[in-house]
Amino acid sequence: MENLQAVAIKKLEERGVTIHDMALLVYDLQKKYAPDLTIEDCENMVEHVLGKREVIHTVLTGIALDVATEHDLLDPEINQIIKSDEPLYGIDEILALSIANVSGSIALTNFGYVDKTKPGIIGVLDKLGKDQKQCHTFLDDIVGAIVSASVSRIAHK
Amino acid sequence: MENLQAVAIKKLEERGVTIHDMALLVYDLQKKYAPDLTIEDCENMVEHVLGKREVIHTVLTGIALDVATEHDLLDPEINQIIKSDEPLYGIDEILALSIANVSGSIALTNFGYVDKTKPGIIGVLDKLGKDQKQCHTFLDDIVGAIVSASVSRIAHK
Amino acid sequence: MENLQAVAIKKLEERGVTIHDMALLVYDLQKKYAPDLTIEDCENMVEHVLGKREVIHTVLTGIALDVATEHDLLDPEINQIIKSDEPLYGIDEILALSIANVSGSIALTNFGYVDKTKPGIIGVLDKLGKDQKQCHTFLDDIVGAIVSASVSRIAHK
Amino acid sequence: MENLQAVAIKKLEERGVTIHDMALLVYDLQKKYAPDLTIEDCENMVEHVLGKREVIHTVLTGIALDVATEHDLLDPEINQIIKSDEPLYGIDEILALSIANVSGSIALTNFGYVDKTKPGIIGVLDKLGKDQKQCHTFLDDIVGAIVSASVSRIAHK
Repeated sequence: MENLQAVAIKKLEERGVTIHDMALLVYDLQKKYAPDLTIEDCENMVEHVLGKREVIHTVLTGIALDVATEHDLLDPEINQIIKSDEPLYGIDEILALSIANVSGSIALTNFGYVDKTKPGIIGVLDKLGKDQKQCHTFLDDIVGAIVSASVSRIAHK
Repeated sequence: MENLQAVAIKKLEERGVTIHDMALLVYDLQKKYAPDLTIEDCENMVEHVLGKREVIHTVLTGIALDVATEHDLLDPEINQIIKSDEPLYGIDEILALSIANVSGSIALTNFGYVDKTKPGIIGVLDKLGKDQKQCHTFLDDIVGAIVSASVSRIAHK
Repeated sequence: MENLQAVAIKKLEERGVTIHDMALLVYDLQKKYAPDLTIEDCENMVEHVLGKREVIHTVLTGIALDVATEHDLLDPEINQIIKSDEPLYGIDEILALSIANVSGSIALTNFGYVDKTKPGIIGVLDKLGKDQKQCHTFLDDIVGAIVSASVSRIAHK
Repeated sequence: MENLQAVAIKKLEERGVTIHDMALLVYDLQKKYAPDLTIEDCENMVEHVLGKREVIHTVLTGIALDVATEHDLLDPEINQIIKSDEPLYGIDEILALSIANVSGSIALTNFGYVDKTKPGIIGVLDKLGKDQKQCHTFLDDIVGAIVSASVSRIAHK
């Protein structure tokens, strides 16, 4: 899995998302519950979450769908639905929730919260997608889920 | 089911939650997406959601657990965990999520959002519980889920 | 949605799955609980399930992933994982579970059962995939979920 | 948590379920995929799963509901629904699925399978419940989930 984790981290970076970007969100969400928390702790936890097989599979599948959509490689009906990030299309959130699910209920509520408030890098991805410069329909939710799973794991320690 | 729905609505009222309380939260969450929305529309949708069998079962089971806990009827270990609404106890959220689940992904993200921001009646229940005046460990999450399911159903129309 | 439902049914047929194939499985799973059930009832219920937006989105996304994989259009790492239907790859089941989820817990247990026993058309798809003649990594699970959701809806009537 | 795990194991035994009973089911489900698997391996994995906080909470909450129902301590409407293990009551499966969820998709499909086929101790609990000698509405599903989570964790190793 180590090799596949490196692939996932590289793909995330190619799409504009670093471990540090995600760690900043984790820190903001959790600092008031854990006063001694450092950014480095958050980076370590994000990296730990990115070592899980189901997370790696979700990252690779979600980015593959975003990229295929950007290049118009899918059937026209579904390509259009994904490209426009249609509000009633929920497969992106379902895929992302599979990451949040394995980290318990604190992850689920944080996922809902960041999905609605779109802080930091999640807002950046969302804006790039809405402007149709890139397709991040899947990635913004997946980043939200990785962040939420990391928050939950810090809370459980 | 009509009869059982009436029982569920009555139990909710006995525990301090009316259809109107929940409709107010639905309205706040959805008004910016649906400018013509009225409070009456929201009340109708909350009542519609409260007509679903799985929702009724969740309401009755959750309130039964809260009440049994208030009266110290459960085994001491679990009674104490529920009464103190221990942050790492997630069964309340899991039960509530079963309501949000059947209404799609918009419900899930709204559930996470209200669980974290605790607006209106949800904040009232949470405070009563935290002050150990009553036990609302299950009910605050269930109300959040009914509200979120109603928001999602309005968005899908 | 009617137009999009027709697209989904056509895609399913192109990939080798008819409403009748799925109705046969529904019938087998439910006949002992509902003695008056007919194949036609089952076909009507499968068609009803295929009218739901989340189901249509899942069908179109899953088939798009299968077809893109068959044509080696995805990044090589994830393309290989999906093509070989790696046992520890679970995104196909997660996508399918989103259909089962909206139909309650009877759907979930039936989904697990058909995923393990692979009756009828599900076994056919699984074999074609295992022989690497076609890629049905997503489709076999999605068909299992449509069948399970239909069974659950018949049980609730 | 160690202390709470001991409480959960003791409660399970009081309700008629040992680690060994569950390990036998794990062994049956997984032996054909892992020829070197021993009953002892399965017992160790069941014990490991029973060390997880969310599992312990689910066990304690589910048994508390079963026992309260047996003693008619809940409101009459919900007490009757739980006691008769009404087929359309799905809260037991939802609670159990929270255990299966944290162990990935192999756990989910095995859960559906054992819920439908009811092997070993699960069948025993189901029969005692159906005969209304004891109430095991929650426990049979929870045992199925612990078994399925254990199977999934063995498969992932």
